[in-house]
Amino acid sequence: MKNTTVLEGKIVSRDTLRLTPGGIATLSLMLNHQSTQTEMDQEVQVEVEMNAVAFGDTAKELDSVKVGDTVSLKGFLSRKNRYSPQPILHITQFKFS
Amino acid sequence: MKNTTVLEGKIVSRDTLRLTPGGIATLSLMLNHQSTQTEMDQEVQVEVEMNAVAFGDTAKELDSVKVGDTVSLKGFLSRKNRYSPQPILHITQFKFS
Repeated sequence: MKNTTVLEGKIVSRDTLRLTPGGIATLSLMLNHQSTQTEMDQEVQVEVEMNAVAFGDTAKELDSVKVGDTVSLKGFLSRKNRYSPQPILHITQFKFS
Repeated sequence: MKNTTVLEGKIVSRDTLRLTPGGIATLSLMLNHQSTQTEMDQEVQVEVEMNAVAFGDTAKELDSVKVGDTVSLKGFLSRKNRYSPQPILHITQFKFS
């Protein structure tokens, strides 16, 4: 089952790099995306804020990002946790834009 | 700014095809996705429920889908509306899986 998202935007907040109870590095951030997309052959203004999280080496590499940086995140969508079905983006790759 | 999502899953609910106040066909649905993804070189079980919406010809074509159908949706993420920043998927292409 396919599940791929690429989302580029500005980092509006980020947590400090921390360890999960299991000892895995993790970093959470909030991305603000604004762009023009095409829908019904018309250009539409799009804005979305997306919670994102990285684990392991990806989290450690992401630790260099600062609020205000523009980054391109690639990963998959998953429910936030057992209690909240709201989607967050699990980052598997990223690059500075 | 890139904004692309491909998400495959089962339709758990769908609204009837309706017209916006501006006379544009629109159809909203909820997709349940379950899969195995790779994170930190490990397989992880992923589940997410995603609100999705289509407009125009895409909405009319989507009107053939039934609850329980498995479909692959492609589109972009956008905030639900002015009051809710929660992301929903704007469907620009779809196919039956």
